[in-house]
Amino acid sequence: MRAKARAYTNIALIKYWGKRDETLFLPTNNSLSMTLDRFYTETSVDFDATLNQDQFFLDGHQVDHQEMKKISTFLTKVRSFTGEGRFARVDSVNHVPIAAGFASSASGFAALAAAAMKATGTDFSKRELSQIARQGSGSASRSIYGGFVEWQKGVEDDGSDCYAVPILDQDAWDLRILSIEVTHEVKKVLSREGMKRTVETSPFFEGWLQAAAADLMEAKQAISDRDFTLLGETLERNALRMHATTLGANPPFMYWQSSTVKVMEAIQALRMEGLEAYFTIDAGPNVKVVCQPEDEQQLLSALNKLAVVKHIYACRIGPGVTYLDV
Amino acid sequence: MRAKARAYTNIALIKYWGKRDETLFLPTNNSLSMTLDRFYTETSVDFDATLNQDQFFLDGHQVDHQEMKKISTFLTKVRSFTGEGRFARVDSVNHVPIAAGFASSASGFAALAAAAMKATGTDFSKRELSQIARQGSGSASRSIYGGFVEWQKGVEDDGSDCYAVPILDQDAWDLRILSIEVTHEVKKVLSREGMKRTVETSPFFEGWLQAAAADLMEAKQAISDRDFTLLGETLERNALRMHATTLGANPPFMYWQSSTVKVMEAIQALRMEGLEAYFTIDAGPNVKVVCQPEDEQQLLSALNKLAVVKHIYACRIGPGVTYLDV
Repeated sequence: MRAKARAYTNIALIKYWGKRDETLFLPTNNSLSMTLDRFYTETSVDFDATLNQDQFFLDGHQVDHQEMKKISTFLTKVRSFTGEGRFARVDSVNHVPIAAGFASSASGFAALAAAAMKATGTDFSKRELSQIARQGSGSASRSIYGGFVEWQKGVEDDGSDCYAVPILDQDAWDLRILSIEVTHEVKKVLSREGMKRTVETSPFFEGWLQAAAADLMEAKQAISDRDFTLLGETLERNALRMHATTLGANPPFMYWQSSTVKVMEAIQALRMEGLEAYFTIDAGPNVKVVCQPEDEQQLLSALNKLAVVKHIYACRIGPGVTYLDV
Repeated sequence: MRAKARAYTNIALIKYWGKRDETLFLPTNNSLSMTLDRFYTETSVDFDATLNQDQFFLDGHQVDHQEMKKISTFLTKVRSFTGEGRFARVDSVNHVPIAAGFASSASGFAALAAAAMKATGTDFSKRELSQIARQGSGSASRSIYGGFVEWQKGVEDDGSDCYAVPILDQDAWDLRILSIEVTHEVKKVLSREGMKRTVETSPFFEGWLQAAAADLMEAKQAISDRDFTLLGETLERNALRMHATTLGANPPFMYWQSSTVKVMEAIQALRMEGLEAYFTIDAGPNVKVVCQPEDEQQLLSALNKLAVVKHIYACRIGPGVTYLDV
């Protein structure tokens, strides 16, 4: 049985930062994202009785042992959920520029989960798909849906109430996302490790949980009201709060570089001049800027003048998982 | 009765960040500083029965109304403490480069407190002097002493147990402080206002209080053991934690500029290369670096190569308040 799926990356407006279960990928707070229209992963999965182990080809090449193990562990979860008994050959093509600082793991595990579940031939809901994708990479749970998506942390130990839910369709609100690349450098502290150190050592983690819950409420209200100013202020504040927790960790760490702060300063200065745009930053140095369609060109032209800006990828809000012919 | 005093600036290794009483300048956490040897204020005070109001000359010029009011309010506290009935003429000369990001209010109010108390002719202890200086500017309480100084927050509502105590003499440990100027710009959020917004709105303030108490214990242990690595790691961590609280405030604010982060990156890179130095940052964009004497020259030469560095002031540990002939 073979199936193929495409999933897009997403960008968190309210950040996923902290796990309550490392194995099941259960988060400590609800997060909220927009799925993007530009960067995606296409993956085909073929369960094949002649194979005696899983195979994974990324962009046509076999991956290293460590990467293979992650994929195989994930496929084993799919097998145990569906009763599928065979090993699989997985072919994955990433249309996500690593340098842009997007988590290719979100689109990667969402596409893999969708293709693998479909390839087993069993019936499954999007909610179940979100739960399964989550067990490959937390943020993948959100890439199942298009538009604005909330990933609910749930309270159960087994993760049965931990999944993403769509909160606004792709076409319901036209916002633009400029993904600004300031460096190609690989991050020093991986997000998984950074999250763990924050949960274990940062005196700000309790405050983060309370703030993230309040920020989430405001962001949902803003989305419901199509209130761009409220959404923007909330998403920028939430990003700063997430990054503040890492400064408190022991030892402290920081995902920003001086060029990151340069872009932050530029956005705040442009805003003072009346150009409404807000930034968010994930576990890396690059910056994403959210704006309204009418301001996109002016913003692009202002930001392209900054010496620290290497490249800007202009994105819109994108769709959820789609299935492709094999 | 006339008297003249000199007081030096100090730099906090464990930051004063948050007030529990705005009028009495009572802090929410103990802080710890080194008094510096290079920047100071000299102030003379003359209580004169012929005056019908207080007069204040800063660097030979009369200050504006708002500044005058602060000084007069402070002198009234001195009068009520000592029973002095006359108005005063105050002459103050600041040997503190504003651009270096030093709080001239620390040396300023320490010198004013000392000269004013002496000019009243009453007997007073250094502890009382620290308590009085505190009521002009919190950090002035520490500039009464040289060397390493702890400002104890106390628990009483009237501030009677809130004063600085010396914990290590000026000559007991030779450390060097490089004060790095990256900008002349005036800060956007004054420290008094930033502190207040943090206390009132930051979800990280509770975490800060706990962390500051733990950091203080470690810093005191490091000073007692002359353990430079422990002191350095602790002071850098504490500075990052203080700044993290501002990122969580609502609205968020940040004292760093991209050039600040550039210097932070440089210090961390130099440390990776084996040059042991640690940074701290106050409520502004400039950076102070603490190192041992044997590394000072190499550090100066490396930091002077950075394009963002405008000037470096090399300091040593300095003395407490001294009285001068009038």
